[in-house]
Amino acid sequence: MAEQERRFPEALERVVGYFSHLPGIGKRTAERLALALMSWKEVDVAAFGDELAHLRGRVTSCPVCGNFSEAGRPCDICASPLRQRDLLCVVEQVSQILTIEKSGSYRGLYHVLGGKLSPLSGIGPDDLSIPALRKRVQEGAIREIVIATTPDVEGEATAHYLAGIFSPLGVTVSRIAAGVPVGADLSFADAASLASAINGRRRM
Amino acid sequence: MAEQERRFPEALERVVGYFSHLPGIGKRTAERLALALMSWKEVDVAAFGDELAHLRGRVTSCPVCGNFSEAGRPCDICASPLRQRDLLCVVEQVSQILTIEKSGSYRGLYHVLGGKLSPLSGIGPDDLSIPALRKRVQEGAIREIVIATTPDVEGEATAHYLAGIFSPLGVTVSRIAAGVPVGADLSFADAASLASAINGRRRM
Repeated sequence: MAEQERRFPEALERVVGYFSHLPGIGKRTAERLALALMSWKEVDVAAFGDELAHLRGRVTSCPVCGNFSEAGRPCDICASPLRQRDLLCVVEQVSQILTIEKSGSYRGLYHVLGGKLSPLSGIGPDDLSIPALRKRVQEGAIREIVIATTPDVEGEATAHYLAGIFSPLGVTVSRIAAGVPVGADLSFADAASLASAINGRRRM
Repeated sequence: MAEQERRFPEALERVVGYFSHLPGIGKRTAERLALALMSWKEVDVAAFGDELAHLRGRVTSCPVCGNFSEAGRPCDICASPLRQRDLLCVVEQVSQILTIEKSGSYRGLYHVLGGKLSPLSGIGPDDLSIPALRKRVQEGAIREIVIATTPDVEGEATAHYLAGIFSPLGVTVSRIAAGVPVGADLSFADAASLASAINGRRRM
């Protein structure tokens, strides 16, 4: 064809490009989302863009625990007088704090590691926020550390590594229980979860 | 619970809100997308936001045909010297131009109606860009109008309505063929497409 095939105007193509960098968004979906913006009210698209442009300045990392916070201040959880301050839950990613908060089953503080030990991916102790965790434990009145890393090989290795550091400091180190999901039919439980459920059985 | 459950910082919640207004994006997916932005480079998020903020100023409607264009100018297709200018394809939505262009089977001009006649939804001729189409036909050297509205009840009604207006003006009005999809197993063809295929059969 003599004429170069132009698809969308360049500005729209660039928006498609950004959308397609989001997880789970392929090229076709990105086009659909960009087209949808063309039918929004102009002020709404501009407001959405403005929010994104300022997002990372407005939402920062809590300097204490690594949770999301606003404008560099300690996060709502670290700042709250209602949280139990001698209990600290260690998670891999900040999004996992939300999951635990939604369960309503935990009222202590958090610490975001930023990942888990993974020799194969070249992630060692120095790549995680373990020094900051050690500092919090040494300075503060932490009585118990609940390790909530994912119950897979690397998450377990990370948990054992942390237990090796913090148990000698006189802190109770505990691990969240792995087992069969509550409310799910046992027929559909995977072998690993079932093995954890049986090994971790408790007397009734 | 005494403490109000705060989920994300407000700026992040607002971004979640915008994402969840996009088609096919539920609340959970919107949260996932917003979280993904928190792991992008800060400059990339800002650049994405800047693109969105300026999108609707940069991408406008072609004043001639209604296709996407840039800064109020006629679109690439209307401006191209390589397009056949006596052939005009009528589509419902601007996104359908892209679909037809991708097929590489059409080299004429376009006209975006902005919908189809739908008495049940209160969409009449005055809600579509039919006056502009009439003006283009009366002014220009249009020889044939190809009506590419969706082959459903409303799309057919719209096609017949347009044929009623433009046939008397001495313009050939044609309709894209409906039938079984090319390359698909006939076993999976729906009854309506099969009926169109049989009714529209051509001598070999």
